[in-house]
Order: sequence, then C-alpha cells, then structure tokens
Amino acid sequence: MWEFRSMNFWRAVFAEFFGTMFFVFFGMGAALRWTTGPHHVLHVALCFGLAAATLIQSIGHISGGHINPAVTFAYLVGSQMSLFRAVFYMAAQCLGAVAGAAVLYGVTPGNMRGNMAMNTVSNNMEVFLTMQLVVCIFAVTDERRNGRLGSAALSIGFSVTIGHLMGPGPSLLLYPSTSQTWVYWVGPMIGGAMGALLYDFMLFPRMRGLSERLATLKGSRPSESETQQDPAESPSSSRHKGLWSFQVGLNM
Amino acid sequence: MWEFRSMNFWRAVFAEFFGTMFFVFFGMGAALRWTTGPHHVLHVALCFGLAAATLIQSIGHISGGHINPAVTFAYLVGSQMSLFRAVFYMAAQCLGAVAGAAVLYGVTPGNMRGNMAMNTVSNNMEVFLTMQLVVCIFAVTDERRNGRLGSAALSIGFSVTIGHLMGPGPSLLLYPSTSQTWVYWVGPMIGGAMGALLYDFMLFPRMRGLSERLATLKGSRPSESETQQDPAESPSSSRHKGLWSFQVGLNM
Amino acid sequence: MWEFRSMNFWRAVFAEFFGTMFFVFFGMGAALRWTTGPHHVLHVALCFGLAAATLIQSIGHISGGHINPAVTFAYLVGSQMSLFRAVFYMAAQCLGAVAGAAVLYGVTPGNMRGNMAMNTVSNNMEVFLTMQLVVCIFAVTDERRNGRLGSAALSIGFSVTIGHLMGPGPSLLLYPSTSQTWVYWVGPMIGGAMGALLYDFMLFPRMRGLSERLATLKGSRPSESETQQDPAESPSSSRHKGLWSFQVGLNM
Amino acid sequence: MWEFRSMNFWRAVFAEFFGTMFFVFFGMGAALRWTTGPHHVLHVALCFGLAAATLIQSIGHISGGHINPAVTFAYLVGSQMSLFRAVFYMAAQCLGAVAGAAVLYGVTPGNMRGNMAMNTVSNNMEVFLTMQLVVCIFAVTDERRNGRLGSAALSIGFSVTIGHLMGPGPSLLLYPSTSQTWVYWVGPMIGGAMGALLYDFMLFPRMRGLSERLATLKGSRPSESETQQDPAESPSSSRHKGLWSFQVGLNM
Repeated sequence: MWEFRSMNFWRAVFAEFFGTMFFVFFGMGAALRWTTGPHHVLHVALCFGLAAATLIQSIGHISGGHINPAVTFAYLVGSQMSLFRAVFYMAAQCLGAVAGAAVLYGVTPGNMRGNMAMNTVSNNMEVFLTMQLVVCIFAVTDERRNGRLGSAALSIGFSVTIGHLMGPGPSLLLYPSTSQTWVYWVGPMIGGAMGALLYDFMLFPRMRGLSERLATLKGSRPSESETQQDPAESPSSSRHKGLWSFQVGLNM
Repeated sequence: MWEFRSMNFWRAVFAEFFGTMFFVFFGMGAALRWTTGPHHVLHVALCFGLAAATLIQSIGHISGGHINPAVTFAYLVGSQMSLFRAVFYMAAQCLGAVAGAAVLYGVTPGNMRGNMAMNTVSNNMEVFLTMQLVVCIFAVTDERRNGRLGSAALSIGFSVTIGHLMGPGPSLLLYPSTSQTWVYWVGPMIGGAMGALLYDFMLFPRMRGLSERLATLKGSRPSESETQQDPAESPSSSRHKGLWSFQVGLNM
Repeated sequence: MWEFRSMNFWRAVFAEFFGTMFFVFFGMGAALRWTTGPHHVLHVALCFGLAAATLIQSIGHISGGHINPAVTFAYLVGSQMSLFRAVFYMAAQCLGAVAGAAVLYGVTPGNMRGNMAMNTVSNNMEVFLTMQLVVCIFAVTDERRNGRLGSAALSIGFSVTIGHLMGPGPSLLLYPSTSQTWVYWVGPMIGGAMGALLYDFMLFPRMRGLSERLATLKGSRPSESETQQDPAESPSSSRHKGLWSFQVGLNM
Repeated sequence: MWEFRSMNFWRAVFAEFFGTMFFVFFGMGAALRWTTGPHHVLHVALCFGLAAATLIQSIGHISGGHINPAVTFAYLVGSQMSLFRAVFYMAAQCLGAVAGAAVLYGVTPGNMRGNMAMNTVSNNMEVFLTMQLVVCIFAVTDERRNGRLGSAALSIGFSVTIGHLMGPGPSLLLYPSTSQTWVYWVGPMIGGAMGALLYDFMLFPRMRGLSERLATLKGSRPSESETQQDPAESPSSSRHKGLWSFQVGLNM
C-alpha cells in the first residue's frame, strides 16, 4: 500500500484516465462520423492506430500508457505490476472511456448521434487480436532489446491498426446495453493473458523465480518502473495498449 | 530585448514564416483540390499531418517549429519562451499563412479556385483537439524523457492527423471573412493554454519557481533553447505545432 | 548440429511459425474481407505492410523475423545462416502459413469464405519485387551502418506495402490447388537470391573468404547472431521478410 | 579525377542507377495501374513516398540516395559534392529512369499499357514543391543536428507524399515526347537551387569560405562523405531525393 502515498502513483492513474478518454473520443468519433462508403474501415483503422500511438507518446512516461484493461491484465499476468496498481488502472480506464463517450456525445450534433453502429465481433477473433497485440507490446517494450527499433508507440499503434484492418470493424456502443456485456470482456482478457504467458514463458523467457513474481504482484517489492520518478527512462515504460474499441461499449 | 540583436532570433522568426507558409500551402491545397467523394477526409488528414511532420523536421532546429499561434501561446503559458519572442512568432505565423494562401491562389487554375469550402467547427471541439495536441507536443519534446521515442516530428504530425480524421474536416477560408473571425481564435487558444497547464502542473510537473518562470517570460534570463546556436541539440527543441487549419482562415 | 541442442534455436523456429501464422492471418484476412471497391488495394497493401512491421518488431530479436521462405533463402545465399537452420525456418514458415489460414477459416463466417480471389502474378514481376525487398532488408539490417535509420521493421514493412501498391494485388488461395503450385516458388526464390548476391557482391561488398562462408553455411562456425542469447542486440538481427502473399497459397 | 579510380565511386553511381530504376518502376507502376476512381491520388502519393523512403534506406549508405537530378543539382549548388560526381549521378539517374520504365513496360500486360496519363504540371508549382523538398532533405541530413529525429528516409518519403497529395498528380510519360521536354527540367532545377541556397545561406548557414566550397566542387579536396568507406556512418549521408515523377517523362 506504499503506492497509495505516492504522487507519482496518482498521476499515473490520472494519466490512464486521460489517455483512455481521448482514445475513446478519437476512435469512436471517427467511427461514428464516417459510417458509410468503402472508405470507412481504413479511415477508422488509421484513426484508432494513430490515436493509440499519439496517446502512448503522451502518457507513456507517466503511467506506461496501457489505456486498455486487457493490456493492464496482461501486465498483471506477466507479474510486471502490482495487483493494487492494476485495479486502479482498470477503474481509471473504465471511467475514462465513459468520459470520452460523454464528451463526444456533447460535441456531436444531434443529427449525427443516431449514426451509431454495433458490430458483434466473435470472441474467437478477439482472443487472437489481443494476443498478437500483447506479444507486440511486450516485445517492443522489452528492456533487454537494443537496436533499430524506432518508436515503440508507433509500433503498437500500427499493431492496433492491423487489428482493425483485418477485423470486421470495431464494436461500439454509445448507449448502455444492459445484457451480455460481460461477453465483451472475456475474449480480450483471455487473449491478453495468453499473449503475456506466451511471451514470458515461451518466446523470450525471463529468469524470475516465483517469489520474485509474487513480490511484484503484492507490491511489497516495488519493481523498477514503479519507484523511479520518470518511468520513461527505461525503454520498457513506453508500454501499452490494446483493442480498446472492443471494451468501449461495455462500461456505459 | 537582447534577442533583438541576435541573428538566430531573426532566423527563427523567418523559419516560422517559412514553415507556416508551406503548411498552409500544402494543407489548403489538398483540401481545395479534392473536395468530393468519401475519400476527401482521409486524403486531407494525411496531407495536414505529414505536412506538419515534414515542416517540423525542416525547421525544428531553427525555431522549434511551432507553425501555429495556439502552440506558441501554449509555450508562453508554460513559461518556456519569452513574451517578446512569442509576439514575433505569432506575427510571422499570420503573415506566413497569408503568404501560403496567396501562393496557392497564384498556382491554382481559375476553375478550381471556386472550390473553397468553409466548415464551421464548434469551439468546444477545437478546445479538446488543441488541448490533446499541446499535451502530445509537450510530452514528445520533454527533455526529461529517454527511450524508444522515434521521431518527435512524426508523432506530432500523426496527432494532427487524428484531429482531422476525427473532426468534421478543416475549416478553411481563402477569402477574407470580415465578421466573427475572432471566434476561430478562442477555442484553440483556450485549448492550448489548458494543455500547457495540464501537462506542466498535473501530468508531469516541473519544479520551477514563479520567479524563474517570470524571468523566462521577460526574456531577461535566456532559457537554454534560446541561447544555444542549434536548438536541435536538445530533444526539446523539435517542439511544435497545431491545428493550423483552424486558424488559417482568419488572417486573410 | 550443435544448434539442435539449443533452446534458443527451437524458440527461433517457433517464432518463425508464430510470425508467419499471424502474418497470413492478418494479410489474408484483410484481402478476403474487403474484396470490392477501388479501396481494396490500398487497404490490403497497408495491412500486409503494417502486419510485417508489427511481426518483425515482435519476433525480430528471437529469430530475426524472416517470415518468408524467400527471405530465408536470401540469407542462405548470402551465407549468413546455416543450412540446417534455414531448413527448419522454411518448414516452420510453411506450417505457420497453413495454421494462419486455418485459424482465419475458423473465425470467418461461412458467407464470407466464398470471397477468395486468386490473381495470377507473373513470375517476372515477383522476381523484381522480391529482389528489391531483399536489398532493402539487407541494407536496413546491415550492422556496418549507423545514423538516422529509424525503425528497421517499419522500413521493411513499407517495402512490402509498395510491392502490393505497385503490383496487381496479392495472389491468394485458401483451398489447395494441386497443380502448378511450384510456379509460385520460382520467382520469389530467384529474386531473393539475386537481391542477396547484388547487395553482398556489388552494392556493399563484405570482405569474407569462401572458407568463412562455407563454415557459416555448415553451422560449424556459429555466426555471431546464432550464439548470442538476444540477437536483437546487434542491429542486423531485426532482419526480415518478404512478399509472403505470393507463397501463402502453395502450402495448402 | 581521383574519384575515377575508386570502387566506392562506381558503386555509388551504380546505386543511383539501381535506386532510380526501382523508384520509377514502383511509382509509375502505381500510377499506371490505378488510374480511375477518387482513390487514385492517395494511392499513388503513398506509393511514391514510401518507395522513396525504401530506396533511400536501401542505398543511402552507398551513394547518399539522391535518385533525382534536381536533388543532385541542389547538392551541387550547396557545394556538398564535386561537379564530376554530380555529372555521373545525373547520367545514372537518367539511365535508371529509362531502365525502370522499360522493365515496367515488359511486365505490364498489353491491355494496361494504354492507360498512361500525362498531366501537365505548371512549372510554378514544381518550383515550390522541389524547394520545400530540398529544404527538408538538407534539414534532416544536416550533421549538425541531434535529437529525436527518427528515420531520415521516412521523413523525406513523406515530404514526397505531400508533394503528390497536394499537386494535381504526377506527370508521367511512357513514350518519348520529342518536343518541349526541356520544360520539365526547368522548374525542379530552379526549385532545387533555391532550396539549397535558402537553407545554406538563410535558414541555417554554414561558415564555409568560398575557396573551401570551390575545392569541394572541383573534387580536389575530397569532402568527408566521399572518402570514408561507409558514408552512412555520418547522419548526413542518408541524404536524398525529390519529385522524380516530374522528371521521369523527359528522358524517354
């Protein structure tokens, strides 16, 4: 609970709120406003991906730039953050998504509000998309790497873009849907956990003992990125992000 | 007033003129020439964003590459430049916008000149778009960061792109509109100031006393980026830019 | 055969399987789902290129990120990997392509499966496209270079994109085609070999003796990138990839 | 004439041939194949820009990656290369353009060859586009800069893209046009020279005496980038390129 007393912790939670709010604002805005024509999917896919890149660049050094509960869950499964921090991140992300939708609603003319579309995405698809995304995030933010990696934020943003270019389009709800919203949580969470386990145990294992992992989860042994004032100092702190569009609808 | 005697200062002012001229030339050119079809918005959004990235790369080491009065205003609010310099930057940007529109007018065939569109953007929207842009600019040019950040100019350019992908399109005027042009200034300026305050006081505070801030504003204590010959040496000097399209119309 | 006993070797083989699976999943997915309209080619070209960039970022430090038999063949011709490793990479890539198509088949609604298109690409064209791609890969991963190179993965991804923007579109088969599939292998393999020879002997020669090259091919003298635990440490390990779309069909 | 005896010199000339050939192959290929629909311009603009980025990445460390006579001319005006080298570069670029068009002609089905379009671009426009491009090239390859610059090649590629997004489309000729081809040379050459003078004397002056400049032009005093084996070692060697499309037609 030592984090509770740290200003940096609360700044990180606020940054997740801020980032998710703007991510939803831009992504849903693009999806709502241009719903017709063959052009729709490329337009929306680029807006989601570049918005993710922009917001990770903006808050990556403050919170790590998850902006997505499935990504935070993947870091939790990978024992890279404390349970305490993860719970607050997820709450901030949900509130941020609601706030972004509310702001969008406020600035959208009445005649455009009726444009909202809801596409049901199969949970199978979401599992694969989120798994690939989490592997990409873990890879580009792996502090063991060097070389010509370019921008971590842009790499993750393009990973989001291909998820949208490939899939049948984002599923979005501007109004509350009371039933079955839990369905939208299952796929990304399973995919996020699978990606974290795949990367950490098969693709590029870390030699860390169980006690070390538990200590990080409990927060009793603060990991490097949680104590230092500027997490952006280590490349691994520009981590981030996911298929938020799939979680946007549920919280409203 | 020591800046008045520095060649570097006048080069920076000229670079802002040059950059804004070409930004308006490219952005408005793309907007004017391809005004029909579902394709319009993506085309124009990419042209604005990539033009911003290109021009920030071209003049970032000379002037900082603001190219937008709202961005200069945000730096002023963040006490990162002198009032004297800000005034000259803004004047150069306004003159550059007029020059860019004039050049475009000159090279455009007569039958295409009538194509101009003016979309009224709500001021509420502009506040949010400019606020997000300024937070992104302050974040990617923050000299306290390290890591896999990639190109600052491209990050800012993509931030511009999502502003256009999200919004209802740029508002452009090639001819003078005599009334109510002040309206276009309000939203971006408020958004720029909000973004500067949000970043500097909440998201990632700098420990600077009031006297230090005042000294920078007055120009009596030259800040680092104003004295060194090549501001590009520090990462924070590739700073920049904004939703120029929203200010283009007013100055003509 | 010393590689046979190394965990890193098997991880690299698995990473090639994983990368090719997702590359096929994303690229074919985009190609199958959006087969109509003038928009098709740009959409698919960006999805292939950004998927390549994403997957090279994800597995580049594990296997080098070839994801394409023609690229592995080019590295073999350039004497930069052992024959043993090349054979396992190619097998993993073929299995990965089958797995990616199978996953895509599983998550695609029945009414969309009939959408598959097969475009015959002339082998002449493929020779040129693959040659250019291999020269680009060898250049951006050349450990003798320094400077403002940015992301190697994104550079290679954009090289893939222009191959698709230029050509008449990818050739894809979701069902087995029993005859003449060997034709699809000829062009890319010739192009890959030509690119490797062009770069290594004309454009930017390496001073390596024949015995040294043979030792690398035999695997008796492990090259630098095969022994170190994290190949990403040297810039040359983010190497990679090709016109996979041209090989996807054959293995099914 | 010392360069005449250097293998590196001839490799650089060959690299300019190779780069220009593929640039014309990709750019013209995209322009010829997709000549209808509102989609055309964005498609072609991205293909030209990303092809430029790809080829600069591929040959930047060998020749500097000009790929355009106007860019070579700008370097000559800026006294950054010898007259001898410039002449050979320009000859190689012209031959490369012819070769690229010939290859494209060979691999294009007969029924698509008739698709060629020629758009007359005003020379005024070309002056501005090439001037902006040369300023961008000089800025991103300026060895006096440091910071978060990202990929020089991609920056220049996007500069090419905005030139195409803004303009009325590339002017292309696959067949020889005997008269008035000199017109296409005037605008880019003037623009290139203006950009070089603007950057070198106004925006970011270099303190170099006249004798030093003359020595470089004569080649008697080999400049840094011409003697070292790998010019890519200095950031300034990834220099490059221009609005080739405007010169493609003339040489055929």
